[in-house]
Parts: sequence; C-alpha cells; structure tokens
Amino acid sequence: MTILAERDAWFDVVDIIRTKRDGGTLRDAEIDWVIAAYTRGDIAEEQMSALAMAILIRGMNADEIARWTAAMIASGERLDLSSVPRPTSDKHSTGGVGDKITLPLAPLVAACGAAVPQLSGRGLGHTGGTLDKLESIPGWRASMSNAQFLRQLSEVGAVVCAAGDSLAPADRKLYALRDVTGTVESIPLIASSIMSKKIAEGSSSLVLDVKVGTGAFMKSVAQARELAETMVALGGAHGVQTVALLTDMSTPLGLTAGNALEVRESLEVLAGGGPADVVTLTLALAREMLACAGLTDVDPADALRDGRAMDVWRAMIAAQGGDPDARLPTAKEKHVVTAPSSGVLTRLDAFAVGVAAWRLGAGRARKEDPVTAAAGVVLLAKPGDRVHAGEPLLELHADDASRFERALAALDGSYDIGADVGAAAARPLILDTVR
Amino acid sequence: MTILAERDAWFDVVDIIRTKRDGGTLRDAEIDWVIAAYTRGDIAEEQMSALAMAILIRGMNADEIARWTAAMIASGERLDLSSVPRPTSDKHSTGGVGDKITLPLAPLVAACGAAVPQLSGRGLGHTGGTLDKLESIPGWRASMSNAQFLRQLSEVGAVVCAAGDSLAPADRKLYALRDVTGTVESIPLIASSIMSKKIAEGSSSLVLDVKVGTGAFMKSVAQARELAETMVALGGAHGVQTVALLTDMSTPLGLTAGNALEVRESLEVLAGGGPADVVTLTLALAREMLACAGLTDVDPADALRDGRAMDVWRAMIAAQGGDPDARLPTAKEKHVVTAPSSGVLTRLDAFAVGVAAWRLGAGRARKEDPVTAAAGVVLLAKPGDRVHAGEPLLELHADDASRFERALAALDGSYDIGADVGAAAARPLILDTVR
Repeated sequence: MTILAERDAWFDVVDIIRTKRDGGTLRDAEIDWVIAAYTRGDIAEEQMSALAMAILIRGMNADEIARWTAAMIASGERLDLSSVPRPTSDKHSTGGVGDKITLPLAPLVAACGAAVPQLSGRGLGHTGGTLDKLESIPGWRASMSNAQFLRQLSEVGAVVCAAGDSLAPADRKLYALRDVTGTVESIPLIASSIMSKKIAEGSSSLVLDVKVGTGAFMKSVAQARELAETMVALGGAHGVQTVALLTDMSTPLGLTAGNALEVRESLEVLAGGGPADVVTLTLALAREMLACAGLTDVDPADALRDGRAMDVWRAMIAAQGGDPDARLPTAKEKHVVTAPSSGVLTRLDAFAVGVAAWRLGAGRARKEDPVTAAAGVVLLAKPGDRVHAGEPLLELHADDASRFERALAALDGSYDIGADVGAAAARPLILDTVR
Repeated sequence: MTILAERDAWFDVVDIIRTKRDGGTLRDAEIDWVIAAYTRGDIAEEQMSALAMAILIRGMNADEIARWTAAMIASGERLDLSSVPRPTSDKHSTGGVGDKITLPLAPLVAACGAAVPQLSGRGLGHTGGTLDKLESIPGWRASMSNAQFLRQLSEVGAVVCAAGDSLAPADRKLYALRDVTGTVESIPLIASSIMSKKIAEGSSSLVLDVKVGTGAFMKSVAQARELAETMVALGGAHGVQTVALLTDMSTPLGLTAGNALEVRESLEVLAGGGPADVVTLTLALAREMLACAGLTDVDPADALRDGRAMDVWRAMIAAQGGDPDARLPTAKEKHVVTAPSSGVLTRLDAFAVGVAAWRLGAGRARKEDPVTAAAGVVLLAKPGDRVHAGEPLLELHADDASRFERALAALDGSYDIGADVGAAAARPLILDTVR
C-alpha cells in the first residue's frame, strides 16, 4: 500500500481518481489529460474503470461534464459538413424496444429539404440497433468513406451509416469499458458519450428522443429530464442547436420488435400507413428537426402522404448497395401467444418484449455476436386494445424453434388484461419537450 | 450501452458490481465467487477495480468483511504450525516511518519462549519494509521453503521472511491493483488484506500495531480504532487471538529512517540500549504477544538486558545466510541540516522524514525498483529536545549527492522550533489498546 508514488507524467492518474472518489471537482487540465492519456493507452483500463465508478457515484458538475465532452470530441476528428448544400439536422434516440423511428424519419426529413447525417450504432442487449435493422435489407452496407458520406448527404439528403473510427475514439474505448464494469448508468457519462459522438459528426442541429419507462435506461421522467437538460446544454455549448423530446417507453413502439420486422413496419409508414404511435413520433421528431434547420414552411405529413419520403428512402438504400425491392427475410418458425382471458390489454411491458426479441435472435449479448434478421416479436394488440380469450396476442418469430422457450419465459407476467382500459390510455406518447 | 447480457457464469460480475455500487449488500456466495473467479483470472482487472471503488465508497458490513477475508484465505494455503513445539504469536504493523520494531521484537519474543512466524513485505512509498532492512545485512536471504520455515521456527523460535506465493494469492493480486487505481484507503479492504495474509500464516495469536498520525495511513484515532476493531474481530472469527495497539506516528520512531541505519539502531536495542520510544514500543508489543501465547511469567525487559534476545537475533540472521558480525553498508555522501534558531523542537513530521528517506534511496516508487541499503535520515533531535541555532538537526545519507536537493525539498516546513515544549511532550506513544 503506497500513499504516494513518483511518476513521470504531468498528472498522476491515481491523484485524479482519488479527487473524484472523495467527491472533489476535476480541473479542466486534469480532464483533458485523462481523456488524451486514456485514448493513447497511457491510462490502464483498470484505472479508467475505477475513475468511471467514482464519477458514477460522486457525479460531475456542469463544467466538468462540458469539459469531459469537449475532450472526448478532441480525441478524434470533427466532421466538416459545410460543403453540404442544405441545413443539417440529426436525431438520436437513447434506445427503446421497437424503436425504428430513424428508418422513416431520415428520408422524411431529407424529403422536406434538410440533410440528415446519421452515424448510428449496433444494438447490444434488449434494444435493437438501427444498423442491424438496415442490414436485413439484401446488399445494404453500413460502412462508407468520408467522401462517400458527404456525397450521399449532398445528393440524397440522408445517410444512415456506421460511425468511423476517427470520431470520438475516447468514447468508443470508454463505452466498451463501461459496459463490462457496471458503470453505464451515469447521467454525466451517458450524456457526454452521446453528445461527443453527435457533435463530432458535424450536424448543425440535433433532436434527441429521450426514452422513459420500463424498456428504457431512464425509468423515471425526472431522470430522463436531467439527462435531456444535460445534453441540450452540451449541444448549445458546442454550437449545435439541440432539442429533446421525452417519450414513453413503457410499451414497445409500433407492432414489431426485430430487424426485418421493423424495416417492414417502417415501409408501411413511408407508404402513408403504419401504426399510429410510430407515425405520431416520426412526425413530431421531423417537425423539430425541420424547425432547427429553419425549414418551418413544410409539413412532413405531406411528404409521407405523397410518396416523396419513400422516394428518398429508395435512393438512400440503393446508394448504400441495398435493393429497395428485395424480399426481406422471414422467419422459419413462428409461435403464437394467445390471450388467456377476454378484456382490455392494460399493460404490455416494453422490457419483456425487448428481452424476448433478443432471445429469439434479434439482438446480441456480446458485440461480436451475429443477429438473426428475421427474428423478433409481432404484437397483435397494444395497450388499450380489446382482446378475446384464445385469440392471438403476440407472435414470436425465430429461425430456430428451440429459442421459443426462453423467449416465453421473458414474457411471463409481462402483460395484464383487465375489465376496462383504465390507466393504459392515459399515458401520452410525448411526455415533454426540453429546449 | 447494455442493461443486461447473457453470460455463462453462475454469477454475473456486472450485477455484483452494480449491487455494491448502489449501496447493497453482497451475498456470501457472490463474495466467494468474486474472489475465486478473480484469482483464476475470470474477472478482469478493470471489473475488480470498479468493484473495489464501489466497496471503498459504499463500504462493507461486518458480515461482508468477514466473508471477503475468508474467501481470500481460501484462495490459497493456510500454514499448519501445529508441529512447532512452542506457542506461536506474530505482530503486524500498518506501517510507519522509522518502524524497525519487528527487528528487535521477533528475537526478543522468541527468547522469552514463544515462536514468531513473521511473513513480511517490502516497502513501497514513504514507509520502509522489514525485508528491505534485513537485506542490508550481507548474505541474508528473505526467501525460504515451507520446510525451512518450520525448522527455523522450531529451532530458533523466530523467522522473518518473504511470504510465499501460496498464501492468499487473491490478496496479492488485489493489493497490486488497488495501488494503481486509487482504492487503497478503504478500511474493509485494508483489514481484509492484512488479516487474510496473517491468518493464512497460521499463527495462533497476533498483535497489531495500528499507526496513527501524519506518517501513517490512518490520520485520526477514530479511523485507526475502526480499523483495529475490524481486524481484531476478523482474527477472533478465525480462531486467532488478536490484540491491537494504537500508536503514534506523527514523528518517526527512534532516530533513524533507512534500511542499514535501522538495523544498526535495532542492534542497539538488542544490546540493551537504543532510543526510549523504540524500547518502550518493543517491550509493550512483546508483553502483548507473550500474554497471547500464555507466557505471562516472563519479563521481556530481562531478555534485552541479559543478551538472550541478541543471541536469538544472531541465530535468526545466521539461519538465513546472514553474517551477524558483518559491517553494515554506510553512505558515501552525507548532508547535515542545521537548526535555524534556538529553542525546543516542537514538531518533526513523520511523513516528511519518510518522503526524504525514500527520495534519498531508502524506498521504492515501483515494486521492481531496487533500494539503497545505506540511504536514509538520522535525527539528531526529537520533538521535546532543546536545539541550538547552527547545530545539526538532521543528517541525510545517500550514495549519490544529487539526491539531497529533492530530499531537502520534502523536509521544507517539516519541523517547528518554539520557545517551550508545549504540546510536543503531551502526546503519548501508545494511544490505546483494542482487544
């Protein structure tokens, strides 16, 4: 046990860990050094995880969070989108079950005149990833060069692709570390992780969809609001106009959770149909993005109705090698869950459906695992709907029937059927807006 | 960001980290699994450091500490000293500046009829290590086999040697990790680290010297008492009769801090002389150890006076290859610090002297660094002594004169000279006893 040690570095990482451990405030120069030294490998993973735990428990103040985010941006490149001949606006969701909104939203906003530079991620755990969903389209590729990215953004107006290694490399390393060390659930670390990537991406405005409920990270509106306010402030500090919607994630969005299933549902929305909640949220986010981009005289509902959004979708998929007319994969095996009684479905838990979809093959436990394109859950009723005993409630899709048992276990106790609609109808989809 | 992941292990380390992070209590089976899995490498260093930080901040209750200690003991071998034909008693110090007490104490207690199985460590930082001190004796070797250990313990009655790899390997790994991750200063982790090694060593009784003051880990009597009470309870729970003395470490023990310098001072004590504080503490600890061993009819002061303790010292050194008559190394360079004014030395800070000795070469910054046998600090006055302007106060010893500057910087502001003795004389050496 040493209480001091001589080191060559300008800062001693152990001193910095101790400062935060004991509830102190990190100085700007200490934060800059920690992020730079961690990125280049001069701070060991076990030291960073101890610091992350101290940050999770002790917190960071607004100045520390701002500096931490700036240092993560500075660990890599910040894209320059000034050559794009349209106002840029992006959207980020904190992750939910059945959250396919990016798929109709990006082409819709592009169809209305903005450019949407969406660098996205893959799913881990019970929430699916946008790239996993798009990869169920035959031929579609998630990766591209910076030059291709800029060209597609200018010509098509929308790009959804994998973030390159050059953006916020500190975040990439820290994100992987936090996942295995129980240091995910920290508002300062979540906010700085999301915003460093989004700010580095170069968009001039950003709309955040902060999910609240059983299927989301943030279980309470108060937590979600704190995260939203933290991120909105970070965006503003870096010149990125940022707005956040707090939206309900107590039940899945739409009627599907799974990769190809969600692409199919997104196509219904782009064709002018689709589930009401998906349409409502897509339009609300589109309006915020367009307002941020200064495009206030367009109504995105028109672009869904008249097919312009679908046209951009087709161009966007084709530009990345995908065939917009290809048949999407369908599951080899299906299993139907029937309603045990008649009445009104008063609750259908988002987390349980997410875990079931994941266990059916839609998600991955480790980042190197593959996902099954056709796997997932189809909801045949949503909270508020009337159901009848013995009729189908949920449909499980998998390529391997042996997966049904564990998926069904996840769904055990996940829904309630009552005499009347009760509280189920009362909860709005959009809970609040933070500007 | 995942909020769950499927793993094959019986327990998920991330769940266990989260439980402690959120202030929960770890179950026995979780603790057993964590220690065993970490020892065999199934828990990564970055996961264990996050858990250690959570434990440091959130604490562990008495049951958790007891189980954690038992699991660390169970990670390796527990020595069986039943073949030793004497009662066994050991002593452990939490570390201080000038703390050479083990050197006269082990042979003294052996001379009084007990067996002292002292498995010791090397110094790191500003406190010296017993093995480093003994290695300044030409020929002396710190390592030996279990068979040699038992034979020397039976025949000579005292062994001071390096702990083998077989005792509490979980602690060895965790100790090294805590040192670089800012997770040292946790009473549950300190107590379980010390006691797992000491219990595994097999002694039937143990006397702890818990240091309090600027030169110690524990800066307050309240902290030291909590640590002492925790360790005494752990000893009792494992059938090792344990007593702790809380002793002052605001100023160095004796008149020397440094390896060969402290051996020389220990020889003075064994010859019936030596500084009063070293003699007082040696006798107090010896009486507790003998009482624990049931040897209440012997007075250790007699064994210092009549040379029996010195005889055991010589046999103990010779049994480990050392030449008890060899000349000890002396420093090539000396530098004298003189008193700037006349009066009474009212304060001489232990931590500053420890850092100075360390910078002169007596200690190491990393565990692979060598130490300089002859380096250190000699005190020519102790708090309460009258000093005269221009006369020597401290003598710095080094093999390389370039080390003086940084040692002098450590001593800057480390002492006060006042008009009268004031509070300096008031603080007793032995502050309390915890049984």
